[in-house]
Amino acid sequence: MRKFEDPETLRSWARKARLAGKKIALVPTMGALHEGHLSLIAAAKKKGADEIVVSVFVNPTQFGPKEDYAQYPRDHVADAKKCVQAGATAIFFPTPANMYADDHSTWVIEDGALSGSLCGARRPGHFRGVCTVVAKLFNVVQPDFAVFGQKDFQQATIIRRMVRDLSFGVEIVVAPIVREATGLALSSRNAYLSADEKVRALALSATLKDLKAGVAAKGKLVWKTARARAVSALEKAGLRVDYVEAVDAENLKPVKTLKAGSAVLLAVFDGKTRLIDNCLV
Amino acid sequence: MRKFEDPETLRSWARKARLAGKKIALVPTMGALHEGHLSLIAAAKKKGADEIVVSVFVNPTQFGPKEDYAQYPRDHVADAKKCVQAGATAIFFPTPANMYADDHSTWVIEDGALSGSLCGARRPGHFRGVCTVVAKLFNVVQPDFAVFGQKDFQQATIIRRMVRDLSFGVEIVVAPIVREATGLALSSRNAYLSADEKVRALALSATLKDLKAGVAAKGKLVWKTARARAVSALEKAGLRVDYVEAVDAENLKPVKTLKAGSAVLLAVFDGKTRLIDNCLV
Repeated sequence: MRKFEDPETLRSWARKARLAGKKIALVPTMGALHEGHLSLIAAAKKKGADEIVVSVFVNPTQFGPKEDYAQYPRDHVADAKKCVQAGATAIFFPTPANMYADDHSTWVIEDGALSGSLCGARRPGHFRGVCTVVAKLFNVVQPDFAVFGQKDFQQATIIRRMVRDLSFGVEIVVAPIVREATGLALSSRNAYLSADEKVRALALSATLKDLKAGVAAKGKLVWKTARARAVSALEKAGLRVDYVEAVDAENLKPVKTLKAGSAVLLAVFDGKTRLIDNCLV
Repeated sequence: MRKFEDPETLRSWARKARLAGKKIALVPTMGALHEGHLSLIAAAKKKGADEIVVSVFVNPTQFGPKEDYAQYPRDHVADAKKCVQAGATAIFFPTPANMYADDHSTWVIEDGALSGSLCGARRPGHFRGVCTVVAKLFNVVQPDFAVFGQKDFQQATIIRRMVRDLSFGVEIVVAPIVREATGLALSSRNAYLSADEKVRALALSATLKDLKAGVAAKGKLVWKTARARAVSALEKAGLRVDYVEAVDAENLKPVKTLKAGSAVLLAVFDGKTRLIDNCLV
């Protein structure tokens, strides 16, 4: 497996691979890799990529000033080992300095149609940072396709929109959420949880399961009622609700009836840790 | 010469050319081609491009609501003929509908460091539209280099910054302003001028020439004094001054002393037509 720190070296390598007719996949991550990330690499492999580039970059521009940029887990040695085992052929560990000039001033923004709600409403600038860094990675690697996790549902929707709107020649693949046997969605931020908090966190997936079961049984649910029940279950478990929303899975617009084609998105604070989860109905 | 309307057809063609080892140049224009545009094609040829793609697109998103989008001159037949003669190998005539979806919501913006002054201050949203369409063209064509005119000095500076900040693998070439024998900088908007207005417009290049001569003679000029003289000359000619600015040619920051490395940028209204011109000192 090749390791790169400098974008220009990665660019030349990817260019050669492309000219040699190789199919290139990109898996953008912030590192602290877990089985969820490795499933993205597996998806790239399954789709027939000849070269699988995993980027590992805790992107400063997508963190708010009061968020966890400084303490976000970083472990390049462990990440590189996991990438090799999962079948990645290149890993990209850029530094903030080689991704952003001191006078960086160009940004990719989504104007709010998709990013004005949910996490976008609670994390100002977050999706500006995400779109900008993903655009940069696309430009450096010029992959045939890129794999994102459904765990970050809003992000995947916004990236798909970015690709369409800015005419990127990159196919977006979204891989399903990977969960522990308990139902807890894998997240690098689970590392912040105490044992007690980890138990409380189970209410996220349990709530989603309950909503899906409700729709499966009745065909649809009035969201107002279903939402009240969900909020109550999360609060009873000891979580502080950030949002509980049902949206159209394509355009993220709120729906009044939960049915096939809807998505439910949750964000809670579990102690000091913010956790998200979602499901397609 | 190949003609394209659909971005995806152009993308496949450009991809094949790239894989065949060809060097691709892009010349983005709004059409109504004149010798200034043709000099950009010539520059691409001189630099050794195997394929020269000229895009002709009056980009709606870079016009303000009170600007001249509707009446901007359009002549695809004449443009295609000129492109062939100048040595372009492909021309791209997209329609607004195949460049922008109805729910387009992703934009490339420069946060104001370079776009907050000069034309950017007077044409809100203009550079957002320019950056967005140029990013799209870069993504579709993936050229080795793209040629812009120095006539749009602020635009060229912002595009260079965009390429750096978003890690585009595209070299930016800026070709000098082409002028009529009278000194008037070529512009598609010169077509709006009456005979009288065209005479008045000569004050633009004459003013720049005077300032350059001043620096050549004295080494530098106090901008406050030089500016007053320039404004007075433009007004005396019957032009309404929009701005007269001296900036650092790299970062567009205003300078107090006009000297080597400065640029002078002018914008005036000549009747109802807004004209710009500039020079490097």
